[in-house]
Amino acid sequence: MSEQVTILDGVAVARNMRSELQTRVEELAKQGITPCLATILVGDDPASATYVRMKGNACERLGIRSKRVTLPSATTTEELLRVIGELNDDPLVHGILLQHPVPEHIDEREAFERIKLGKDVDGVTTLGFGRTAFDLPSYAPCTPQAILSILDAYEVPLEGKHAVVIGRSPILGKPVSLMLLNRNATVTICHSKTQHLASIVKTADIVVAAVGKPRFVQGSWIKQGAVVLDAGYNPGNVGDVDYEACLPHVSAITPVPGGIGPVTIATLLRNTVHAAESELNR
Amino acid sequence: MSEQVTILDGVAVARNMRSELQTRVEELAKQGITPCLATILVGDDPASATYVRMKGNACERLGIRSKRVTLPSATTTEELLRVIGELNDDPLVHGILLQHPVPEHIDEREAFERIKLGKDVDGVTTLGFGRTAFDLPSYAPCTPQAILSILDAYEVPLEGKHAVVIGRSPILGKPVSLMLLNRNATVTICHSKTQHLASIVKTADIVVAAVGKPRFVQGSWIKQGAVVLDAGYNPGNVGDVDYEACLPHVSAITPVPGGIGPVTIATLLRNTVHAAESELNR
Repeated sequence: MSEQVTILDGVAVARNMRSELQTRVEELAKQGITPCLATILVGDDPASATYVRMKGNACERLGIRSKRVTLPSATTTEELLRVIGELNDDPLVHGILLQHPVPEHIDEREAFERIKLGKDVDGVTTLGFGRTAFDLPSYAPCTPQAILSILDAYEVPLEGKHAVVIGRSPILGKPVSLMLLNRNATVTICHSKTQHLASIVKTADIVVAAVGKPRFVQGSWIKQGAVVLDAGYNPGNVGDVDYEACLPHVSAITPVPGGIGPVTIATLLRNTVHAAESELNR
Repeated sequence: MSEQVTILDGVAVARNMRSELQTRVEELAKQGITPCLATILVGDDPASATYVRMKGNACERLGIRSKRVTLPSATTTEELLRVIGELNDDPLVHGILLQHPVPEHIDEREAFERIKLGKDVDGVTTLGFGRTAFDLPSYAPCTPQAILSILDAYEVPLEGKHAVVIGRSPILGKPVSLMLLNRNATVTICHSKTQHLASIVKTADIVVAAVGKPRFVQGSWIKQGAVVLDAGYNPGNVGDVDYEACLPHVSAITPVPGGIGPVTIATLLRNTVHAAESELNR
């Protein structure tokens, strides 16, 4: 075991974020503004319904209004686009979250793209992605932001460090890679077609696991003293990292649950509050 | 020296591209369409003027109309935006190229962003970048496209290979990294803050040099049998790679000049012809 392992406590980081947001929500209230997140749930996938409810409740606990739009499975792309257009135009709505996945017959990409940049608090548009990649103001997706927030909260140095990201999804692997790059890390992006994955991970100072496979990252893959961030959340509250096996090798690691997850939710709230604040400057 | 080194002949690749484009331009002519690239040159930087002239001439040799807009150094951001807006709206203009750099007092990013996606044949918008990153239809910047075209022309396998990109500019390092990733390469992005650069490059099956430093990449950095792409073009017709020193190690390499450069120009023409063809489907 390393001399001392830091458990990167996402619950604590999220608590600090919420406490700071509380103050900002109160400031907004003095200006007569209640931040509002609109969530759109299409169809009746129970897991999606749970996620949306969870996010809505988290909003309300902080004094953010949650406007919950629920649409039937049979909704067409055109109908969904119209709903998004209305929310774009609604001055009382500051953020829009379209819960992924939508039913198969809907063009999800087209629906995401319809969300106005300033209300894209979930970071799903290609425009927002491009702006994040170029380090311009925009809402990056919440999980990559959460990863950076945890690294920053624990003052993990990034400049010149070798970060290996396992996974290349549009809302996690790709954006977090570019965000780490913009923070001057050297970044390697790995995925299902990567050869010699274990030996590549072994060179990493920082490992981001975003594969969606339970306990995928093995202890033997980890360089002594590396920092491991587990963005996985698999059935049975299990991450993408074999936590117990990695512990002896890491200098710091996020647990699952209680790691990146809570900070991701807090980030969604922060983006929504930020969007409401931007209202003041328009 | 390797058994056999393939010199990746950009002049030949570009010739093949132009010959195919010739046919497409003739097809368009039968429909009454002449592809047109509008170039915008702001100020009187002689190098920029040369580049713009070169691109315009390359267009005209292929039967693409070149509409050359020249604006004085004192042009304001607002004036430039208005010019771009007019070109966006002009049905006879299919592609718009704003020559970089513009004078310092102009907001170059805002100007780039104003270019309509369908006319962004130089691949400078953040929207286009996001779409490229997500593997959606868009014009990636011409140099990254040229790199992929050369790799494809010589049937260099990418899937599962380790590509190391040196450089992270918005029009080269970043987009080519994501394009290689979308082709299932494992990608490492290095830059000025990277530690242990030589040893990282040494692990690469494919090296893309995009640093802008003459003869920066050393022979001793190259793994035996690697493929080296030199996107540099420094004073004295020198690339970013120490070509002679790398030759004994590589299986294939682009020369400078005669490598990526000519294919980059041909790519700009191809994008413009493609944009004109898209006209037919509107």
